[in-house]
Amino acid sequence: MNIQELAKKRKTVRKFNNVIPPIEDIIYAINVAKEAPSGKNDQPWLFMLISNNEEKNKIREICEKGEKAFYKNSKGRLREWLDKMGFSWKKEFLSDAPYLLFVFSYQISPFSKESVWLSIGYLLLALEEKGLSTVTYTPSNYNEITNFIAPPENYKLEVILPIGYSIDPKPKYERKNIDEILIIKK
Amino acid sequence: MNIQELAKKRKTVRKFNNVIPPIEDIIYAINVAKEAPSGKNDQPWLFMLISNNEEKNKIREICEKGEKAFYKNSKGRLREWLDKMGFSWKKEFLSDAPYLLFVFSYQISPFSKESVWLSIGYLLLALEEKGLSTVTYTPSNYNEITNFIAPPENYKLEVILPIGYSIDPKPKYERKNIDEILIIKK
Repeated sequence: MNIQELAKKRKTVRKFNNVIPPIEDIIYAINVAKEAPSGKNDQPWLFMLISNNEEKNKIREICEKGEKAFYKNSKGRLREWLDKMGFSWKKEFLSDAPYLLFVFSYQISPFSKESVWLSIGYLLLALEEKGLSTVTYTPSNYNEITNFIAPPENYKLEVILPIGYSIDPKPKYERKNIDEILIIKK
Repeated sequence: MNIQELAKKRKTVRKFNNVIPPIEDIIYAINVAKEAPSGKNDQPWLFMLISNNEEKNKIREICEKGEKAFYKNSKGRLREWLDKMGFSWKKEFLSDAPYLLFVFSYQISPFSKESVWLSIGYLLLALEEKGLSTVTYTPSNYNEITNFIAPPENYKLEVILPIGYSIDPKPKYERKNIDEILIIKK
């Protein structure tokens, strides 16, 4: 399968079954992610893998507290979109997914956010190659969840990736045509 | 070739020959990039492809002006690293690479920077698959180069990707061991 087929096949997944994937497959994807380029080659990424049920439940509880506040305050077009998509403050995937992969960026490095998100691009394709699914979940209450997880100093939480096998019936969202996103200058 | 082999093979390249790659290969990579997930599925990326020599020369001139100021002001560990790596304000790749791909993010979209850099991860692997090389070049004087390029309103320049075939003898920089970047919590 070429990269385009893999990229087209890959969709965001929010529902997982309870089959535990081989940890080797997740480590494979992180090994791919660490090959990404980065500012000053600082490799400012840090990954934390969590599978303990008690800890996942606590994480879900903290995140849902933030989501409740977020949904209460969200208005206008964003809120319309959330409702239309059937999203709510409930984040079952935080406890249902067999693994939660926390991704942090080292704030001291130049272009740390850019580098880490580029490496997440690598990671998502590698997970797809292994038949694994995820969603790039960015909690509303970063500070609370960061305090609970307690990463090393100067590491900022960028995203939580729940990882497992998909049972999500939602299709992949449509993408724009290339003409809408590419300008070829003569 | 699996994703890991492709990711390991892919290195940053700053020297290009003057062979012009098929534009279809670059469009292929952008078609891969646009499959990436994004905040609210806004697909906040915009790509601008430039191959005109006169325009590339002007871009190089503007960027090098910014680089001269940056090098004049850079001190300490960053400057030591730049000197050790043999970098200077000269950016030959901006005129030597057959193509310059400008990547912009739509500032109104949620998580626009994160989404665009994730898609750049997809893009780099797709270029590698086609035997094409690049460097994620972030100019020092964003405003000047943005004024020259004049993207649509609310689009922010994230990176310039010079694209072509490598004649760069530098090896890929070493990556950390996985133990240094992965914490597995029990």
